[in-house]
Amino acid sequence: MNNWESRFAGRMGRIKSSAIREILKVTQQPGIISFAGGLPAPDLFPVEQMRRAADTVLSQHGALALQYSTTEGHPPLREWVAAGLPNTTPDQVLITSGSQQALDLVGKLFIGPGDAVVVESPTYLGALQAFTPYEAAYLAVPMDQGGMVVEALEETLKQHQPKFIYALPSFQNPTGRHMDLSRRKKLVEVARRYAVPILEDDAYHHLAFSGQILPTLYELDQELGGGNVIYQSTFSKTLSPGLRVAWVVGPREVVSRLVQLKQGVDLHTPTFNQMLMYELAQTVLPELVVKIRNTYRERRDLMLAALEQHLAKEAHWNKPEGGMFLWLEIPEGLDSAELLKKAVEQKVAFVPGQPFHPDGSGANTLRLSFSNASPEDIRVGIERLGRALRSLLTVKG
Amino acid sequence: MNNWESRFAGRMGRIKSSAIREILKVTQQPGIISFAGGLPAPDLFPVEQMRRAADTVLSQHGALALQYSTTEGHPPLREWVAAGLPNTTPDQVLITSGSQQALDLVGKLFIGPGDAVVVESPTYLGALQAFTPYEAAYLAVPMDQGGMVVEALEETLKQHQPKFIYALPSFQNPTGRHMDLSRRKKLVEVARRYAVPILEDDAYHHLAFSGQILPTLYELDQELGGGNVIYQSTFSKTLSPGLRVAWVVGPREVVSRLVQLKQGVDLHTPTFNQMLMYELAQTVLPELVVKIRNTYRERRDLMLAALEQHLAKEAHWNKPEGGMFLWLEIPEGLDSAELLKKAVEQKVAFVPGQPFHPDGSGANTLRLSFSNASPEDIRVGIERLGRALRSLLTVKG
Repeated sequence: MNNWESRFAGRMGRIKSSAIREILKVTQQPGIISFAGGLPAPDLFPVEQMRRAADTVLSQHGALALQYSTTEGHPPLREWVAAGLPNTTPDQVLITSGSQQALDLVGKLFIGPGDAVVVESPTYLGALQAFTPYEAAYLAVPMDQGGMVVEALEETLKQHQPKFIYALPSFQNPTGRHMDLSRRKKLVEVARRYAVPILEDDAYHHLAFSGQILPTLYELDQELGGGNVIYQSTFSKTLSPGLRVAWVVGPREVVSRLVQLKQGVDLHTPTFNQMLMYELAQTVLPELVVKIRNTYRERRDLMLAALEQHLAKEAHWNKPEGGMFLWLEIPEGLDSAELLKKAVEQKVAFVPGQPFHPDGSGANTLRLSFSNASPEDIRVGIERLGRALRSLLTVKG
Repeated sequence: MNNWESRFAGRMGRIKSSAIREILKVTQQPGIISFAGGLPAPDLFPVEQMRRAADTVLSQHGALALQYSTTEGHPPLREWVAAGLPNTTPDQVLITSGSQQALDLVGKLFIGPGDAVVVESPTYLGALQAFTPYEAAYLAVPMDQGGMVVEALEETLKQHQPKFIYALPSFQNPTGRHMDLSRRKKLVEVARRYAVPILEDDAYHHLAFSGQILPTLYELDQELGGGNVIYQSTFSKTLSPGLRVAWVVGPREVVSRLVQLKQGVDLHTPTFNQMLMYELAQTVLPELVVKIRNTYRERRDLMLAALEQHLAKEAHWNKPEGGMFLWLEIPEGLDSAELLKKAVEQKVAFVPGQPFHPDGSGANTLRLSFSNASPEDIRVGIERLGRALRSLLTVKG
């Protein structure tokens, strides 16, 4: 069989191999310090507790833990999710195979060829990878240090009828930016006024370094009557990403359709994994979250100090108050994809910012992850990054 | 927010709530004997071995078992799959979140609105649920007791240019029919001649009651040069369906595109689950398969005997040589959906055959699953089914 590409569906024309993915494969080499992957710190994973939970679940549930189960999800886990949200019943909760699946299902439910979707610029790359196969047209709304600029959103909504607004108000991936309460309220209010639903991605919910968690858009929307926010969150940034358990919550008319789609996509999220997460959510989670916050705050502080020491003259960055990421700007005119090549020579890696921008802007930006690097790696890695940047500046100079 | 339906993508117009799904919810009631679900026998699940495997995996791999992993799958598991197939290297293997995900990904890769796909009539309902959201146009090829009628397929291929042929040659769901070697060869040859790829669903591969497994279409295609069959199989009918681990294998140009799509859909199949399955595949699987075959053969025999005793006059059925299902025909003019209502009154359940037929035919057919019922339930349940059928015949008579 020749020429497979000519047989594929039209949507595949939009799905390109990521050049960055190829570069990042290099970063698996020994000796490279990587700030690239959006990986939680594995040293904090509850390995021992998972072992005990596996034992408990298989003793309690036996073969049921290994059998097919309902598409909607493990009932006690749905109850647990609903109990953590205002005015929410378990039938509004669908357990998904990671947050990524919620993005795919919502994309599949709403987006037809050419349909507009509002995204922050930059936004989570995985959301673009989920929505693009459904041939979304992106309306990129600019951000400032406080997140999506709501005035710019409103200008967009005056001119377009998007299917939904994809928003990451808390410790956004890739920027680490956080939306304050007054802007959250404004965002929810504008979305309601223009009758455009919000898809709120709250993956980093628990990772507020202060421990003070702002109301979600879902919660604020409830205060205005509710029904305009589809909410998703996950265990991937706390208990374990490798078990792929997350959830999406929304109006019943939406969730029942997502359930239908999920049935065609993977029948259900693994039964055993849902039972394990339910077990750990009740026992380990609260304490673990505190440990993660403290560790990530320390690492952020170390990275900020190292940046101050090694890149103060050449770059700008933010001070994220939670999450796993920090956003760096290098001088206008430089390309962080070129910087990455220099960086790999110096044995350090990051993710260039451009792919996070649906409009192809942001060439002089990059994402650094501080969650999954030891203090020593942060010190040495940022020093190397400084050298790489100066070497690029010399070439360009 | 009102009128969500009007905001959904056009594809949702094709996705209807299944009336049968609603009826089958009733079958969860205590006292009902269900031959409806396509469930493996839970009493054969390796619960104790899974507990030990969880211990081993978490000891050996520690936090890595709980971390994000590559989209392609756990490398040793990909090697294990490749080693079981002729002329296949691990880079041709993608680990999926159940077989259902392979159907979704292949559908997403090939099918655009109105694209034709060949399916057997009847075919696996989950395949229709996977392909329909991509707006497939089905070309239903009739079956006889030996599976898809290849002459009819060839007539179809003379007139149409389908994207692929979806085939379940071994112990098909829903009919339990099995294609013999000569017809397999003919199918592979015809598909190559018309240059239409085959998607071979081999979920029931190991469940040949004789223990003699016929060559797969994938293998036969290799003998003619290869490259025209995409192959999928799963652990769901052997080790555990609830862990959702399966695989799809094919030409590199196809698999690399499936990997891109999977990244947008769920990032990767759970790391822990892949490691567990790799562990059990090497230890438990061969012995377990023999036990499953023997158990299911016994149950099939019991069901055949009970049918002979209670429905010999009113119905026809086949004698499946493997798998989990048996296909029943009731007199022309009767509707098995109506029979189901009578059956539920008698406290027995099955799945009506019509939804498995993309052209809406098959009203007088139904699927019985013998894998997940005790000998006593088979005896009593089939007796009840006989009563239900006679009560329907009385009404209609």
